[in-house]
Amino acid sequence: MTDFAQTKALFDLPEGVIYLDGNSLGPLPSAAPAAMQKVMHDEWGKMLITGWNKAGWMAQPARVGDRIARLIGAEPGHVVMGDTLSIKLYQALASALEMRPDRRVVLSDSGNFPSDLYMAQGLLKSLGRDYELRVVPPEDVAAHITDEIAVLMLTEVDYRTGRLHDMRALTEAAHAAGALTVWDLAHTAGATEVQLAENKADFAVGCTYKYLNGGPGAPAFIYVAPRHADTARPALSGWLGHEAPFAFDLDYRPGAGIERMRVGTPPVLALAALETSLDIWDLTTMSEIRAASQSLTALFIEEVENRCPDLALATPRDPAQRGSQVSFRFENGYAAMQALIARGVIGDFRAPDIMRFGVTPLYIDAADVRAAAETLEDVMKNRLWDDPAYQTRAAVT
Amino acid sequence: MTDFAQTKALFDLPEGVIYLDGNSLGPLPSAAPAAMQKVMHDEWGKMLITGWNKAGWMAQPARVGDRIARLIGAEPGHVVMGDTLSIKLYQALASALEMRPDRRVVLSDSGNFPSDLYMAQGLLKSLGRDYELRVVPPEDVAAHITDEIAVLMLTEVDYRTGRLHDMRALTEAAHAAGALTVWDLAHTAGATEVQLAENKADFAVGCTYKYLNGGPGAPAFIYVAPRHADTARPALSGWLGHEAPFAFDLDYRPGAGIERMRVGTPPVLALAALETSLDIWDLTTMSEIRAASQSLTALFIEEVENRCPDLALATPRDPAQRGSQVSFRFENGYAAMQALIARGVIGDFRAPDIMRFGVTPLYIDAADVRAAAETLEDVMKNRLWDDPAYQTRAAVT
Repeated sequence: MTDFAQTKALFDLPEGVIYLDGNSLGPLPSAAPAAMQKVMHDEWGKMLITGWNKAGWMAQPARVGDRIARLIGAEPGHVVMGDTLSIKLYQALASALEMRPDRRVVLSDSGNFPSDLYMAQGLLKSLGRDYELRVVPPEDVAAHITDEIAVLMLTEVDYRTGRLHDMRALTEAAHAAGALTVWDLAHTAGATEVQLAENKADFAVGCTYKYLNGGPGAPAFIYVAPRHADTARPALSGWLGHEAPFAFDLDYRPGAGIERMRVGTPPVLALAALETSLDIWDLTTMSEIRAASQSLTALFIEEVENRCPDLALATPRDPAQRGSQVSFRFENGYAAMQALIARGVIGDFRAPDIMRFGVTPLYIDAADVRAAAETLEDVMKNRLWDDPAYQTRAAVT
Repeated sequence: MTDFAQTKALFDLPEGVIYLDGNSLGPLPSAAPAAMQKVMHDEWGKMLITGWNKAGWMAQPARVGDRIARLIGAEPGHVVMGDTLSIKLYQALASALEMRPDRRVVLSDSGNFPSDLYMAQGLLKSLGRDYELRVVPPEDVAAHITDEIAVLMLTEVDYRTGRLHDMRALTEAAHAAGALTVWDLAHTAGATEVQLAENKADFAVGCTYKYLNGGPGAPAFIYVAPRHADTARPALSGWLGHEAPFAFDLDYRPGAGIERMRVGTPPVLALAALETSLDIWDLTTMSEIRAASQSLTALFIEEVENRCPDLALATPRDPAQRGSQVSFRFENGYAAMQALIARGVIGDFRAPDIMRFGVTPLYIDAADVRAAAETLEDVMKNRLWDDPAYQTRAAVT
């Protein structure tokens, strides 16, 4: 059994703050700064170029990928780190599309994170040849899986509402129609008990700065199912995905398996910070996290609904259908969220009217959830959003 | 006048080591670990998600880009940071190709860094439609610039020999033939006095972990000439290159100017490390660096040629035609380099027979260069490469 009081103590959480935004940027693991010092002084500083061998930097993307594989139900040796989520999404989609050369439609939904849609638009425009990105409402996805579809590209958990897609059913339907799947796990990894291998996902990508607490701009990951790993062509064919990077051949030959999805030089410092967070993840299992998360999100919904009648729940009430966040709609949501943040409860806002709260059992407990609901009640009952100071939009909302 | 003894003192160089591999991975700026601590504790730790506004993380890629712009002769506001060099090369090439829709040939040379060729191969294969990557010997590039060429894609300084292309002449020739240019500045930025604006380069990309000392896997940069910046279409169209990232629209609309070349969430920690190195760069100018570099590379050539008759100079003798490295060919070069490294002089080896030495005036002086040549003489005269211990290849060479 995970001792969540123990894991909470391993984060550096500011005094007096309840942090319900770990679905956007996870907090600092207390061990991360010292670990980073060590990497900077003892590896970069002392080993210099020899760190690629001596400190294992070259193997770091696969080593870290394996630690993430456990959290997303992937086969060991089939996840590798690097780049950003947008880049990894592009890479996965480009590979998947080539595996269905006779089809031209990418199916996605309007609950997908916009960057995924943008990257797909950019790729399809480059490909030309009548490619189409078909975007339907999340609830209509299943009905649109036809034999026209080359790739079903979805984010499993809706970044605004927290609605969780049924990965197993949709993947099955896609396969039955002859399509491949690209799953974005941005709000899944570290949040729900996803089973990539069991659900027969084809490609998956995700980021590590949200629930996985890797730090601002931490690297992304990509998963390719073993049955595709040695045949998928990486459109982003960089030297570190080459069969023999240090032969410096003029022609590209893809490396074995997931290694071919590497592109350029790995972000060693950022991966080092992420590794300290994965040490905390090693203390738990996703099934325990999922159970705790469902209980905490249910508690938060109950507390807020009892205290704040003006907020409309945007997240599915059925715990099996939501990720690890709770969202409420409120027309003055932006200002209300600023008022809440000023009182030490940090959530965030997503246009047009969503107040969003991430629930992260590693460092958020029932007492935090109750206290957050109380503070939110104070904001709502006293119409604190009326203060003009809370209405000026910041650059990043 | 730059005081290079002062800049040298700002790096954390291991005792007893002469580091001639700053063209592969620059050393640790002494201020970097403390600066990183501050960012981790005071920004990530204390500000959490609000760091995007409060700590200026969102503006960091452009702010850092401007500091690099000065070092590469670019107009302020036209360089932005992110991703890896391979990704930025892909992005620049894809944009450039679309600006010449009636042409199908990318011209490059066999002295280009292989990853650039690989990325181009990957892109062109995706585009299909008879695209061709034409690779010619470096000395033949000018003769192959014809009106078939859509994009001339070159690395300015050859990673093996240190040979420097004539950016001005080749760019002029490309433009005269109606082609665009993509310049890779991997061995240029911080090494030579490049003038992107003056030479009318169209696109340029580079990395920051070599001469710029940003740390292992530090982020890349991209430059787009002002005349193209508002029209180039980013094939890698991520949300942070969107006109309004936080509007979360479903359709991509490119941001203004160089901002559209941003893709995903910026690597905040890695950029913070790079910034401490740029503080050192602020103490000098590229014209002073170039003068010091030319004098040091000349000295190293002279010393080594006098002492080691078995080594054949692979770098142009004319200082105007070389970057900031010196390379020698030697059939036992791999083992000889290992023997040299074991004696505290760190250079590197590039297949098939190149011993490579980076010269970096920020922290390498004439005494270092002389001492390195003496140690190399010892390795050569005593055939130290014969020791089998030096002949086992490491994973990364």
